[in-house]
Amino acid sequence: MGHLNHADKSLKQRVARLKGQVLALERALDGGQADCLDVLTQAAAVRGAAQGLMVQLMAHHLRAHVAAPEDAGQRDSGAEEMTAVLARYLK
Amino acid sequence: MGHLNHADKSLKQRVARLKGQVLALERALDGGQADCLDVLTQAAAVRGAAQGLMVQLMAHHLRAHVAAPEDAGQRDSGAEEMTAVLARYLK
Amino acid sequence: MGHLNHADKSLKQRVARLKGQVLALERALDGGQADCLDVLTQAAAVRGAAQGLMVQLMAHHLRAHVAAPEDAGQRDSGAEEMTAVLARYLK
Amino acid sequence: MGHLNHADKSLKQRVARLKGQVLALERALDGGQADCLDVLTQAAAVRGAAQGLMVQLMAHHLRAHVAAPEDAGQRDSGAEEMTAVLARYLK
Repeated sequence: MGHLNHADKSLKQRVARLKGQVLALERALDGGQADCLDVLTQAAAVRGAAQGLMVQLMAHHLRAHVAAPEDAGQRDSGAEEMTAVLARYLK
Repeated sequence: MGHLNHADKSLKQRVARLKGQVLALERALDGGQADCLDVLTQAAAVRGAAQGLMVQLMAHHLRAHVAAPEDAGQRDSGAEEMTAVLARYLK
Repeated sequence: MGHLNHADKSLKQRVARLKGQVLALERALDGGQADCLDVLTQAAAVRGAAQGLMVQLMAHHLRAHVAAPEDAGQRDSGAEEMTAVLARYLK
Repeated sequence: MGHLNHADKSLKQRVARLKGQVLALERALDGGQADCLDVLTQAAAVRGAAQGLMVQLMAHHLRAHVAAPEDAGQRDSGAEEMTAVLARYLK
C-alpha cells in the first residue's frame, strides 16, 4: 500500500475547504436563528465535499496501485482492494 | 420557515464530532505518510456523519413544519418543501 | 398505514419505464458484445429510476400520512415512519 | 474498450433477479391495495440491486482494462475512464 506524499497539495486544499464548511455550519447553529432547511443545505455541501475527496483518493489509488505497478500481481491486488472499496461505499 | 433554537444540543454535538473528524483528516494528510485507503475511510466517515446530520435536520423539519402546524395549508407547504429536499438529495 | 389506490397512474408509468430499462439491460448482455461501461451506464439509469420512484412514494407518504390527517397523533406517527425511512435510505 | 462475453453468467443472473424484483413491484401496484412504505421497500431493493450490478461491472472494468493490459498506456486510459465513472456515479 502506498503513502500519500507531502506533494499532494490539491488534497490538502480540499480538506481545508471542507473544514471551512464545517466551521460555517457550527456558526450557523451557534447563532440560534438558523433555518433548518438552510442548515440542511450546508450539511449537504459537506457531504458533497467529502464525496469529492473520496473520488480524488480513489483516483489516486487507481493510478498508483492498479495502473502503475509493472508487476501484474501487484496490479491485481490493487484492483481487488479497489473493488472492496467500491462495494463498501457505492451504496 | 422555523428556526433552530439554542436548545438543539444534539445537533451541535453532531457538528462538533464532524469537526473532530475533519481535523483528524487534516492531520493525516499533514503527516505526509498517510495511506490513501486509510484516508479514504476517514473521508467516508465524514460523508456518513454529514448524512446523519441531514437526516436529523429533515426529521426536525418533518415534526416542526409538516406534522405540528394546526393549519392544513401550512402543513401542505411544509410537505412540499420536504419533497423538494428529497428530490434534491436522494440521488 | 394507507394504501396506494388504482388511480396512481404516474407511479405505474414510472414502473413500466423501469421495466423497459431492465429488459434493455438484459438484451445488451444477451447480445454478448456489450461494452462494460455502456452496460454500467444502463445499470446507473435503472438505479436513478428506482431512486425517482422512491422520492415519489415518499412524497405520497408525506402528503397522505404526515400532512393530511386531522388528528395530530396520526400525523406524528406518520412523521416517525418517514424519519425511519430517511435514516434507512439516505446513506 | 472490452466487450462483455457470453461467459459472464453471474451478470446475467443479477439482471434476471433485478427483472423479477421490478415485475413484483408492478404486481404490487396493479393490485391497487399496496401500502406506500411496502412499495418503497421494494423500490429500494431495486435500487440496491442496480447498485450491486454497477459494482460488479466496475470490478470487471478494473480487472480487464486497468490491471490486465501489459501496455502501461492502455492501463492509464482504463484508469482515466474509471475515474470519470466514479466522479459521475459517486454522488
